[in-house]
Amino acid sequence: MVAGVFDSGAGGLTVVKSLLESHLFEQIIYFGDTARVPYGNKDKQTVVRYSLETLEFFNNFDIDMLIAACNTVSSLAIEELRAHADFQILGVIEPGVLALEKCITNKHDPILILGTQATITSGCYVDLLRQHGYTNITQKATGLFVPIVEEGISSESVLQETMKYYFHAIENPCAVILGCTHFPLLARSIGNYFGGIPLIHSGESIVAYLHTQQEFTQRYPHTHIQYFASENPHNLQAIAKRWLFPLG
Amino acid sequence: MVAGVFDSGAGGLTVVKSLLESHLFEQIIYFGDTARVPYGNKDKQTVVRYSLETLEFFNNFDIDMLIAACNTVSSLAIEELRAHADFQILGVIEPGVLALEKCITNKHDPILILGTQATITSGCYVDLLRQHGYTNITQKATGLFVPIVEEGISSESVLQETMKYYFHAIENPCAVILGCTHFPLLARSIGNYFGGIPLIHSGESIVAYLHTQQEFTQRYPHTHIQYFASENPHNLQAIAKRWLFPLG
Repeated sequence: MVAGVFDSGAGGLTVVKSLLESHLFEQIIYFGDTARVPYGNKDKQTVVRYSLETLEFFNNFDIDMLIAACNTVSSLAIEELRAHADFQILGVIEPGVLALEKCITNKHDPILILGTQATITSGCYVDLLRQHGYTNITQKATGLFVPIVEEGISSESVLQETMKYYFHAIENPCAVILGCTHFPLLARSIGNYFGGIPLIHSGESIVAYLHTQQEFTQRYPHTHIQYFASENPHNLQAIAKRWLFPLG
Repeated sequence: MVAGVFDSGAGGLTVVKSLLESHLFEQIIYFGDTARVPYGNKDKQTVVRYSLETLEFFNNFDIDMLIAACNTVSSLAIEELRAHADFQILGVIEPGVLALEKCITNKHDPILILGTQATITSGCYVDLLRQHGYTNITQKATGLFVPIVEEGISSESVLQETMKYYFHAIENPCAVILGCTHFPLLARSIGNYFGGIPLIHSGESIVAYLHTQQEFTQRYPHTHIQYFASENPHNLQAIAKRWLFPLG
């Protein structure tokens, strides 16, 4: 089984980490659109155009499926990708909502969705959660979270003030959907702020979803990965090596 | 006199504001590369490519000069722009250093340069300041400043903690070069942190520089502006209207 994984930049490596741990893939081809990152502050038309250009890149490979690790792509361009692709396209929105359902069965419990401005504006998580019967949904664009992760800022006081800034007026949720590939790297701070509630992670959600699919009968002890990027692929490879294989 | 003004996004409007107040231009044509913003986390090759593509856009207009309002473009791509342009190309680095010289005559006084990662990595401010005889130069990439401005965050505690995070280990400077078009919008907080020292602003520096140039003999009571953007020009126009003409 060969998967393409597409993200606006390096954030999708949080999804790759989960895919590696799952042993469901023989090969992963990762593409990060590092020359145009981030997508989360762009509009739908632009994100669709970039996504379809990336699809052309993946047409050069013999992949079984393309995983749009990026929540912004999954929110804004998944239908357009499906309309143009010869292989299965998997986004992270539906798997995220299915993963939430395993934690939160009372549909009146308050749920918080975090994401980029584009993901939040699309309303796609809210729409799908409503279809699944959830009634108490809040969403919040947390635009500083991506640059905080990319800057590697671990200062507790910066993190705490930023959390307070975004969350001070929000009802304490029973679960949080981390609707951006960068946000799992802030899971500890977000969890601390809200007091140990379930945090829904796109990578883990995708893996749980794949385990329910019939075609995934085989397990692979090793997954071969190739990294591509629209700018400076060596930098992406270095981040991946440091982060996915810290002891390697 | 007709100027093109080029920025990676909307940040260059801080420079436009100064140009409007100067009455030196009959017409300004502004282009923001909003579909690919920001430039400050991209590498030189990418910034040069984007800048030369933007130059082609300006070839459609009869401009007397192109002002690279963006410090990242001024740092990484000014020579390449000059090599390909049929009109004068003006960056913000040299005007910034000249403006500093009017405030700081003791070349041993500590100077702090703030900018995007790309501007700081290029070292172009440091090189030019050394050529001008400055000996005590510190520079710092402050990656959160652009998203803080773009998010419109005015929370004093977020701003203070972010300033502390970046500046706690830095010797108190006698002047700060605001080496990014967004940073003048944080001038109050930066000024408060360092206690009312001179802050060098790209827009004011460019205007001071233009006033020394012979060809600027005429003054125009009104400047006509046109806004173009690689994504959602209406959004850029709305920001400009709200920000440059708050009472209009």
